[in-house]
Amino acid sequence: MRFGANYIPSGKWSFLWEDFDVNHVRSDFDDISSLGLDHVRLLPLWPALQPNRSHINMRTLDSLCQSIEVAKEFDLDVSVDAIQGHLSSFDFLPSWVTSWHRKNIFLDSEAIDAEKYLIDALRNYLGAFSNFLGITVGNEINQFSGPPHPDPMPISSTQAQAWLEDVLTRADDHACYDAALYQDDHPFTPAQCARLGSKSIVHSWVFNGTAQEYGPNSIEVSHHSEYMIELVRAFSSTPDRSIWLQEVGAPTTVLEAGTIPNFAEETLRSSARCANLWGITWWCSHDVSRKLVGFPEVEYSLGLFDEDGSLKPLGARIKQVVADLRLNPPPVTARNVALIIPVDHNDLPLSRAALAPGGRIFDTWMKLTSQGISPAIALSSDTERLRTFEETIHI
Amino acid sequence: MRFGANYIPSGKWSFLWEDFDVNHVRSDFDDISSLGLDHVRLLPLWPALQPNRSHINMRTLDSLCQSIEVAKEFDLDVSVDAIQGHLSSFDFLPSWVTSWHRKNIFLDSEAIDAEKYLIDALRNYLGAFSNFLGITVGNEINQFSGPPHPDPMPISSTQAQAWLEDVLTRADDHACYDAALYQDDHPFTPAQCARLGSKSIVHSWVFNGTAQEYGPNSIEVSHHSEYMIELVRAFSSTPDRSIWLQEVGAPTTVLEAGTIPNFAEETLRSSARCANLWGITWWCSHDVSRKLVGFPEVEYSLGLFDEDGSLKPLGARIKQVVADLRLNPPPVTARNVALIIPVDHNDLPLSRAALAPGGRIFDTWMKLTSQGISPAIALSSDTERLRTFEETIHI
Repeated sequence: MRFGANYIPSGKWSFLWEDFDVNHVRSDFDDISSLGLDHVRLLPLWPALQPNRSHINMRTLDSLCQSIEVAKEFDLDVSVDAIQGHLSSFDFLPSWVTSWHRKNIFLDSEAIDAEKYLIDALRNYLGAFSNFLGITVGNEINQFSGPPHPDPMPISSTQAQAWLEDVLTRADDHACYDAALYQDDHPFTPAQCARLGSKSIVHSWVFNGTAQEYGPNSIEVSHHSEYMIELVRAFSSTPDRSIWLQEVGAPTTVLEAGTIPNFAEETLRSSARCANLWGITWWCSHDVSRKLVGFPEVEYSLGLFDEDGSLKPLGARIKQVVADLRLNPPPVTARNVALIIPVDHNDLPLSRAALAPGGRIFDTWMKLTSQGISPAIALSSDTERLRTFEETIHI
Repeated sequence: MRFGANYIPSGKWSFLWEDFDVNHVRSDFDDISSLGLDHVRLLPLWPALQPNRSHINMRTLDSLCQSIEVAKEFDLDVSVDAIQGHLSSFDFLPSWVTSWHRKNIFLDSEAIDAEKYLIDALRNYLGAFSNFLGITVGNEINQFSGPPHPDPMPISSTQAQAWLEDVLTRADDHACYDAALYQDDHPFTPAQCARLGSKSIVHSWVFNGTAQEYGPNSIEVSHHSEYMIELVRAFSSTPDRSIWLQEVGAPTTVLEAGTIPNFAEETLRSSARCANLWGITWWCSHDVSRKLVGFPEVEYSLGLFDEDGSLKPLGARIKQVVADLRLNPPPVTARNVALIIPVDHNDLPLSRAALAPGGRIFDTWMKLTSQGISPAIALSSDTERLRTFEETIHI
């Protein structure tokens, strides 16, 4: 199992890619490597990579190449997200899809061609590095498709599917934020998360209402990522499909400072016992610097290292737990009982709200977990898989 | 009188500032200097300078410094626009004023503080260069204040005035596109153009309807910049205030290729005979490369040099006319007849449409010009100045 960190450059945040310094990256990767982590996820901003539809900024591409080379010095593998798009509350759409040039990035053929051109360019330049892991389409780009985005580009689920199939002819994976799983009428669907791309990608954030509703030290918080992993597994078309917990973090705005290391440990241990988990990539390497203003409060304190580069108690605990998990790989949790999600003929849940915090599937799963039963989750349509469980629960 | 060019970097357009190469600038400045021009106007993009409200990208600032140093090698002076904002149909608002972080750039106190922070940073780093001319607030930033912008940030004229007075405590000048003069209800006013900042700045573009309405070889086209200079003079509070024709270009989409050098010569010669004209800065140095897609057609052919760096007939004629105007400075055109603009108690025209192409002030001025009379323009409120004319015409 792989353990890594989402790389948020110290001091400069993702503006590093517009003001690159390879020694800055070297120092940050040294930090990350010191925790025993084995990979980083890089998130260059879209306009910095592709200021014009037909023009890749070779300087940014070269900065990525240099970073991958430096990562090799520390035995770190590297994953890259192509289309940011969005990062930490800020949108970074290039000028050629906004304002006078507004284009729906999921529907406009020129925009889609440009996105594929960018992904191809990344592949051409980065693909040859031995420590290159692959390309995720973009960070939670599904958020642009509907509310609560303030200026959405509306699409249907069919259009989301077509777009994903198109860009995934070039990219390896795609990453949705949890609206795809939890929000009824969201154009991106759980089945898309679980069936398109080489892995099912999970972003687990307990500031989605879980910590607020159940309390910072609840079972619901410490098992949220495990629940999401099992939830996305329910929608997989093949039982052995890999799942990547690509983002999980400890939001200090809804947790308690003193218990954050425990939250991290419980999250790592419960997730690591899930079947077919490719890896866990913690969000994030370094706190956003207080010199950069206007970020939501939570973004300033998610790092394993603080803005001065000092290891935080969170980072220290993760180092310790990762070392232990590497030394003593945990057994996969047996799941003999399955909660059944009622789905329609497209495997769309009849209620995604039932899967979300506060919903009956979520609550039942957590209740069983608190009783020492580790439930699987399965679709009402998946008759073959349903036969493999000792017990199925329809609620 | 000064003659210069708006610097559009060959090949890379303003994306040069995110992918800087000093030798690229050196080569371009060599081109510009070969025409006998004495200054350039630089237009770095806002997000490349200030990716976060509190953070200046020092790499971009350093690129500007290097460019000013290189300009010195060619005896070129340099003017810099701070807030682009907008350039050649593309908007470049930073992420901290858009989408989830939407702020009205004219009203929000945090945004205004950031704008002043940027202007101060430019002044601190660029101000010491002996060939530095000064800072214009930003390129036609007034366009964000109302229609036809697709996503305007509405303000009143009083708010526009307050914003200009505030940012002009730091910047030298401000530049409006012609809606300020021609469009009724546009928040930015002619008086603001003519009274705030160290100079009155004119951007003259005959694709505003003039060429379409009157024909490419009309008096209205060849004297459009002269008219705008006299129009903005009417609103000046002091008779000797400098006027800068900061943008004028030859749009191939509405002119005829064969007559463009003549258009340029007539524009230069008629404008150069206007009183108190500080200088003329042609738009632009180099054609936008066809490798960059999605620009309006007109933007690909405005350069004095083509995208391969070859001098165009337009550039050759400008070189020749500038040399002649330097050798034989033309006398200022005498203007004994004044057209009177009816204004209210705030010196706002009762009709700005009357000043625009197709309006009665515009048409009368052009008719007199075609008869060999060069009219001045004056405000109905400006009793002192009105006395200086032999004849005043109220229409």
